Amino acid sequence: MPEFLELASPEKALNTFLDLVPHSPEAVRIRTEEALGRVLLNDVVAPSPLPPFARTTVDGYAVRASDTFGASASMPGYLKIAGEILMGTDPELEVGEGQAVLIHTGGMLPPGASAVVMIEDTQAVDDEEIEVLKPVADGQNVLQEGEDVQPGEVVIQAGTRIRVQEIGGLMALGFIEVEVAEAPRVAILSTGDEVVPPAEEPVPGQVRDINSYTLSALVERAGGKPVRYGIIPDNAVDLEAIARQAHSEHHMMLITAGSSVSERDITADVIAKLGEPGILVHGIALRPGKPTILSISDGVPVVGLPGNPVSAVVVAGLFVLPAIRRLQGIRGPEWSATLQASLKTNVSSVSGREDWLPCRLVVTPDGLEAEPVFGRSNLIFTLVRADGLVRIPAASTGLKAGEKVEVRLF
Amino acid sequence: MPEFLELASPEKALNTFLDLVPHSPEAVRIRTEEALGRVLLNDVVAPSPLPPFARTTVDGYAVRASDTFGASASMPGYLKIAGEILMGTDPELEVGEGQAVLIHTGGMLPPGASAVVMIEDTQAVDDEEIEVLKPVADGQNVLQEGEDVQPGEVVIQAGTRIRVQEIGGLMALGFIEVEVAEAPRVAILSTGDEVVPPAEEPVPGQVRDINSYTLSALVERAGGKPVRYGIIPDNAVDLEAIARQAHSEHHMMLITAGSSVSERDITADVIAKLGEPGILVHGIALRPGKPTILSISDGVPVVGLPGNPVSAVVVAGLFVLPAIRRLQGIRGPEWSATLQASLKTNVSSVSGREDWLPCRLVVTPDGLEAEPVFGRSNLIFTLVRADGLVRIPAASTGLKAGEKVEVRLF
Repeated sequence: MPEFLELASPEKALNTFLDLVPHSPEAVRIRTEEALGRVLLNDVVAPSPLPPFARTTVDGYAVRASDTFGASASMPGYLKIAGEILMGTDPELEVGEGQAVLIHTGGMLPPGASAVVMIEDTQAVDDEEIEVLKPVADGQNVLQEGEDVQPGEVVIQAGTRIRVQEIGGLMALGFIEVEVAEAPRVAILSTGDEVVPPAEEPVPGQVRDINSYTLSALVERAGGKPVRYGIIPDNAVDLEAIARQAHSEHHMMLITAGSSVSERDITADVIAKLGEPGILVHGIALRPGKPTILSISDGVPVVGLPGNPVSAVVVAGLFVLPAIRRLQGIRGPEWSATLQASLKTNVSSVSGREDWLPCRLVVTPDGLEAEPVFGRSNLIFTLVRADGLVRIPAASTGLKAGEKVEVRLF
Repeated sequence: MPEFLELASPEKALNTFLDLVPHSPEAVRIRTEEALGRVLLNDVVAPSPLPPFARTTVDGYAVRASDTFGASASMPGYLKIAGEILMGTDPELEVGEGQAVLIHTGGMLPPGASAVVMIEDTQAVDDEEIEVLKPVADGQNVLQEGEDVQPGEVVIQAGTRIRVQEIGGLMALGFIEVEVAEAPRVAILSTGDEVVPPAEEPVPGQVRDINSYTLSALVERAGGKPVRYGIIPDNAVDLEAIARQAHSEHHMMLITAGSSVSERDITADVIAKLGEPGILVHGIALRPGKPTILSISDGVPVVGLPGNPVSAVVVAGLFVLPAIRRLQGIRGPEWSATLQASLKTNVSSVSGREDWLPCRLVVTPDGLEAEPVFGRSNLIFTLVRADGLVRIPAASTGLKAGEKVEVRLF
């Protein structure tokens, strides 16, 4: 379709844009216990080994492995009980030849011992002696000092988003505070003379503002700090004044354009004036989202989003979220959650344009099915009824019922 | 393996437990803009239609469709321009026979009009007249009143977790406040005489507390409110006193047992005493996670988790998260994020036991590969190095390199 030849492909648009999105965030120091979802700014280097000492992984007896060689149920080995290792204490006992020391899972291996015989593989003779019914090799049932982490090792790389396990790892090494990326402040401006705040009762001809709130929620979910400017009147003077102020005070700015051509033109003109290099992409071979504008203005990413609420959410997912990740200094991939399903109905598409189709997931006896949500795609409850989006590549002219698709969860 | 015959399967354990987890949370009223991730307690019924009036989806002219029938580029129809619909206003004009009214995307269709001709399909004759180059059918380029939502329709069901689009839908209908489930308060108790708080420098034999913090983060991520009780000494008297108090003040309780058999026995005894019906499951055919305890004590779910940090995280993902969802009143499935990959190496497993294997995702020219994270599975940095878990079903004795697996992302 010649219509799409002048439009950037979504992939090229994203790369052109991301290349110029800054990725050296300011640092803030916070408590590790509050760091879930934040992005680490520096490599974490282990100051000490983990485990910090050799530990037993079973309940049993710490022994010299060589003392158990050849032991069996019919020919047990005999060892003298030389004491017990109490949890959380530094053992003062040393395990000598022919000796065994009672030890509990996680306990510190005493000097002299090279392995642990499981309690199930022993039998008490009396209070002073046990029979060993099975041999152990050197190191058996023992976690060696530093087996998880060696001192000086980079255990978590700069640019990692902190998950549950990173919190655990940091705590294990004693890092109760960490330096993370400041949350990018993202200004959100809505335009449209027909748009009123949700608290107002719209008169005929008016509709309530949706975009300010869906975009705020998306920004927040990605780790940014949304700052809502509300609804700006659709004239170039007011919009430019407010956009300039918002641009100067934030790390990123989103403007949802009014839906008419003249409103979109005003938005584009204002974005073009904000700074250098200015608009990088204007128009993408994408549905929904064709009129999207991607700009970098004096180091601040500015995205002009379609006014239609569904388009705004889809475009924000494709272009705004990756930019917020980069603003936070994230390196490496972040896996987006998908589910495999088979498409329930035929879906047609125009070649040359990438489509994102809202689908509902349905569990059937034959597996998961992705059912396209019917109804016009620019209505917000279309997305409420959907579990995710299916991508129809630009090269495709449609997908067939029964075809395997990846549903990208919201 | 006879060892597993007495153990509950993970699926049966979960169902037995969840059946008795309460699911009638208290309501709290909050602002919709702060409701992301919270759970709606009541059906949302549309008070008014959406769109609230018939709107044009294009820039063009509102017309009577019948006036355009037969129009073509070579034989255009002629219509008189009767005015313009301004955005956000109730049109006072009526479109009569032979008339056209200029209208912008999203504008309210004026009375008399039945369709909109796209601006591209018209040509101005002068300021007063246009040529129509293409016919439109009734309703073409128009969103009808109520096409997204009819008044009285249940648009979001009780028990739905609020995503970005639900915030948009609520705002579109003017619901600036919503009733959501109170966040379940979850008490977290760690035991283990060898465990010290992360801020302390452990002496030989001691290790830092990891579980309190990973479990807090998991609870928070699921929508609960973690309340940490810190490290409780490993004796029945102290543990029982603190557990009784925590149990009486929270919606749920997690106790990580010490790692030795005697410590685990103390934990089990204390959990058994807390209330009726008591322990439902003790021991699951699962690795990691075999010693898990699932209990309901006087309406409060209590989970005894293995002390090993990796086991605690895996078990919490499988049993604690679903319980927290149910405590919040969630109905219907929540899709867990997975990615398809091919397994990089052979992995063996014991038949009769379900295994969860930490894997790293690697992008290769042949697609995504899941590489099992080497090293002992009970070390926290094993999980830091992993992107997700691969489930090896109980019936399987292992998986082969190249096999397609689902990686459940953390």
